[in-house]
Amino acid sequence: MSFNENAHGVYAIAATPFHADGTLDHDSIGRMTDFYLRCGVTGLTILGIMGEAPKLDADESLAVVKGVVARAAGTPIIVGVSAPGFAAMRSLARSSMDLGAAGVMIAPPPHLRTDDQIVTYYRQAIEAIGDDVPFVIQDYPLLLGVIMTPKVLRQIVMDHPSCRMLKHEDWPGLEKISAMRGFEKDGSMRHISILCGNGGLFLDFEMERGADGAMTGYCFPDMLVDVVKWSRNDERDRAHDLFDAHLPLVRYEQQQGIGLAVRKYVLMKRGAIASDAQRKPGSALSAAARAEVDYLLTRVARTDPRAVL
Amino acid sequence: MSFNENAHGVYAIAATPFHADGTLDHDSIGRMTDFYLRCGVTGLTILGIMGEAPKLDADESLAVVKGVVARAAGTPIIVGVSAPGFAAMRSLARSSMDLGAAGVMIAPPPHLRTDDQIVTYYRQAIEAIGDDVPFVIQDYPLLLGVIMTPKVLRQIVMDHPSCRMLKHEDWPGLEKISAMRGFEKDGSMRHISILCGNGGLFLDFEMERGADGAMTGYCFPDMLVDVVKWSRNDERDRAHDLFDAHLPLVRYEQQQGIGLAVRKYVLMKRGAIASDAQRKPGSALSAAARAEVDYLLTRVARTDPRAVL
Amino acid sequence: MSFNENAHGVYAIAATPFHADGTLDHDSIGRMTDFYLRCGVTGLTILGIMGEAPKLDADESLAVVKGVVARAAGTPIIVGVSAPGFAAMRSLARSSMDLGAAGVMIAPPPHLRTDDQIVTYYRQAIEAIGDDVPFVIQDYPLLLGVIMTPKVLRQIVMDHPSCRMLKHEDWPGLEKISAMRGFEKDGSMRHISILCGNGGLFLDFEMERGADGAMTGYCFPDMLVDVVKWSRNDERDRAHDLFDAHLPLVRYEQQQGIGLAVRKYVLMKRGAIASDAQRKPGSALSAAARAEVDYLLTRVARTDPRAVL
Amino acid sequence: MSFNENAHGVYAIAATPFHADGTLDHDSIGRMTDFYLRCGVTGLTILGIMGEAPKLDADESLAVVKGVVARAAGTPIIVGVSAPGFAAMRSLARSSMDLGAAGVMIAPPPHLRTDDQIVTYYRQAIEAIGDDVPFVIQDYPLLLGVIMTPKVLRQIVMDHPSCRMLKHEDWPGLEKISAMRGFEKDGSMRHISILCGNGGLFLDFEMERGADGAMTGYCFPDMLVDVVKWSRNDERDRAHDLFDAHLPLVRYEQQQGIGLAVRKYVLMKRGAIASDAQRKPGSALSAAARAEVDYLLTRVARTDPRAVL
Repeated sequence: MSFNENAHGVYAIAATPFHADGTLDHDSIGRMTDFYLRCGVTGLTILGIMGEAPKLDADESLAVVKGVVARAAGTPIIVGVSAPGFAAMRSLARSSMDLGAAGVMIAPPPHLRTDDQIVTYYRQAIEAIGDDVPFVIQDYPLLLGVIMTPKVLRQIVMDHPSCRMLKHEDWPGLEKISAMRGFEKDGSMRHISILCGNGGLFLDFEMERGADGAMTGYCFPDMLVDVVKWSRNDERDRAHDLFDAHLPLVRYEQQQGIGLAVRKYVLMKRGAIASDAQRKPGSALSAAARAEVDYLLTRVARTDPRAVL
Repeated sequence: MSFNENAHGVYAIAATPFHADGTLDHDSIGRMTDFYLRCGVTGLTILGIMGEAPKLDADESLAVVKGVVARAAGTPIIVGVSAPGFAAMRSLARSSMDLGAAGVMIAPPPHLRTDDQIVTYYRQAIEAIGDDVPFVIQDYPLLLGVIMTPKVLRQIVMDHPSCRMLKHEDWPGLEKISAMRGFEKDGSMRHISILCGNGGLFLDFEMERGADGAMTGYCFPDMLVDVVKWSRNDERDRAHDLFDAHLPLVRYEQQQGIGLAVRKYVLMKRGAIASDAQRKPGSALSAAARAEVDYLLTRVARTDPRAVL
Repeated sequence: MSFNENAHGVYAIAATPFHADGTLDHDSIGRMTDFYLRCGVTGLTILGIMGEAPKLDADESLAVVKGVVARAAGTPIIVGVSAPGFAAMRSLARSSMDLGAAGVMIAPPPHLRTDDQIVTYYRQAIEAIGDDVPFVIQDYPLLLGVIMTPKVLRQIVMDHPSCRMLKHEDWPGLEKISAMRGFEKDGSMRHISILCGNGGLFLDFEMERGADGAMTGYCFPDMLVDVVKWSRNDERDRAHDLFDAHLPLVRYEQQQGIGLAVRKYVLMKRGAIASDAQRKPGSALSAAARAEVDYLLTRVARTDPRAVL
Repeated sequence: MSFNENAHGVYAIAATPFHADGTLDHDSIGRMTDFYLRCGVTGLTILGIMGEAPKLDADESLAVVKGVVARAAGTPIIVGVSAPGFAAMRSLARSSMDLGAAGVMIAPPPHLRTDDQIVTYYRQAIEAIGDDVPFVIQDYPLLLGVIMTPKVLRQIVMDHPSCRMLKHEDWPGLEKISAMRGFEKDGSMRHISILCGNGGLFLDFEMERGADGAMTGYCFPDMLVDVVKWSRNDERDRAHDLFDAHLPLVRYEQQQGIGLAVRKYVLMKRGAIASDAQRKPGSALSAAARAEVDYLLTRVARTDPRAVL
């Protein structure tokens, strides 16, 4: 149930299912976990930004961890523990590990600016959660506004043996993957796993630049699984063909703010969750947007039968 | 133990006392509460930004509320409940009221931009905490980056009868006070209390523009109490004379980031708290900075004997 | 040579061609203008953000306007005149109109926050350039950080009869188009032209929501022209089929920062400009990136013979 | 007419005088230059942010440089050349030097984030203006949002022999001065001049931390001259006494946005300029604000007869 620096494949960013009234939907937590496992994912990441984590209170967060870990039966679960303060971060991290999580993910808070501030932040965070907890760096400048250069990422990796993985979602980000892998080649950095986010929008080329897979929440994790597998097997055209068939929908789902509504709508249509409700403040799809997603699904279905819903 | 729209005087933004090892210093919570009451404050605001609130976990936050409310014996206590999500906000707000707090304070999260986004945010927040909880709007653009125009503030006040007070710390902010009071004069807004923050840096003129007092954490709350009292009595020169004597230190303490270190250092020297430790990540005073504060205290002491330490 | 609120089709955002040494390439200005006209564009927009406008000095800017207007022989030219101050904005706007431009485009400066600040800015800008100069509002929050709600855009449109067009590149932005068209339907706003940017990433659905066309710089303006034409003719699947074939490259080109390097590289391959050099500070494609673009072109060429290069 | 890394004293940030109709007031340029020289300044900095530089077009900027240099008769003049692009920066820098300026000042553009981006920007800027032009780094995070650590500043200084001075206006900033002087002591950085900005709000302690003087626009440059002189002579209390007498007004003038209106109002009252008009978009003092400044002047005048107006 652990994950290490050689992890590859797809870690799905799991949604958090709610009932229409905003309460946690515990049944759907189980059903959704089953769905992801059936899709062939290597692991799951829960309580991430797209998992509406900041909308849960402390008890609810632990209930989600408990529910998913129990159902996942050995598949490694990573828990997003980013928090405004280290006491809350530590508390969630330690409890999650006690409940059987494989590790945690930490994003830098938006106020960080300089290289030194970022390196110091991770040092203090690891001090808080303990250096026995495997962790993932989340690099997401488009949303967080914090720019971590390859040199800064290397510093964090080398400072902390418990760092196992980079969730890469810089944009543009292809050169960053090449730079990180270059550090491994020139011996200045030990190897870590790199899984890519950003809804999968560049997964085709990210794999070719040296990524190990995806960590993102696109509503067809099974497509991501195939693309990663075929890329790793050097079946280039096959990987691109499937990827390109999904790209119009990938792009539509990757929109900031309403992307989660698209994702939950399709997950609901696929039977993974009972309702596409978001806890407030949430986004919702207009009738026009729903019709657009339906049209895109029809078009994807011409190539990928899994999109026949 | 309640506060209303006619509140005036000084609500001190209370520090949160820690031991050197970062644990909560419960003894000092009581001692500090006594100190503020001796200074003549009308109320206290706890768990604000300068109270290191985001560094506490949920249980610790409630322990602070409990400790201060019990000791304050009837003096109204306002609790900062700003949080990344409404579940945590609701939970802290309801528990605080159950413990005897007089109301809560809510700041807008940094990602808000447009007028509509801000108005909507407060509507959702009040829905979450309940419209029976008296609340204060915290308007602090220098730190939060959210700009609320007078029109937006008026909208929030008029939408929510439970809004009792504005913590005004815009900078520059004098014209905003005049604009808000102008809305009351032209009948477009009901009266609310306006208490001013920003370390007190403009308290002299804020009072003259129509503010009702201060809500800030300057290490001499007793000075703020005098200035507010004399301003309300139209003893203009007397108020300015005392204010100006403190201004070099007010300015020094109002520095972002290290201001809290200055404040806790002086509170410690005044016997209000046992240690000036901050929980990590915290700032600390260099030897040079400490000597500068000591020099400033000597200079203040030439006019105000309370600064003889 | 004028443009009005009924404009539709494609206004290509023109690149600015440089020699390898960073000097303006006047020959390529003519050749590129011919290229865009052959692609079937309705108009051209020059000196935009992707036209490296801020890197030119005042004389160079006018030389570009002169060169393009002369060669375009009656096709309307819009000139980006966004500037840190109104004196420079006025000077470029008036000179451009004297040289035969059809209108100007104005983006809000990044420091604007509140609704009132934005409305006031446009009032002052129009006062500066004169209300006889037709203008386009550029709405580009992803890059500029300024969020203009539909209500704010309507206010600007209604305040200024010389406003003829919205360059829409909000993201996500489909609902905004619907909202603006809704204002026209409910009679609260007069009709204006809406052309969409963002590299064309959502052009397929933007057309269906009511946009009149595209104003963007994608390296196959001829594809944009076809998609706009077929969408306006209700040939839905045909439009999507061509669009989807290009989408992998559209997405690649739309990357912030390196997008312009991709665009100039393909424009060079298509013979539109002699060199893909950018004036400093510029981005450049790595060998890996160039190979990726070449691969994407091969894939597009399977559907669109114009991509056989 | 040159300035070097041993510069000390006061470089006044000069206002740019306009007539009420927004045209340049050439008479006042001369009169104001005389005023600053009478105040005892060592040099002048023109076309800075508080000099309304972005509101001027290219010809007007050069007219200001010409007018001030001619009148200053040998006093070194530094010209702010920050610009959105290097072509405009180069053009203003070279022309200014040809007209007799002593050097230029360059601020980092607001979009810079990482250490490397900042160092690269200065390298490209110096390449553009030429390494024979003495330059000042402007470090102003409060306004620009760019955070330059001491290490980054050292890198720029060591990369560029033509760097002569740091205009320090970080806030809080005292430890930064100590850090820079520490680099000189430990031999890792050559000596440069450090002059402080931020309206002078911390000049008292900045001098004690190792600054060489002030570069700011406070409306009593003669006060700054005295404080710098006495600090350099170790007349500590005397320096603080005068500084503290002015501090209420210094603080009032240092308000973002309306500060320039205060400054021009007092400069007009002191006879330095004919009108306190700002070119649009500008701020203006309300009647209440003007009365507050008048009251503050009365209070300053109790200690400093130069404030009797």
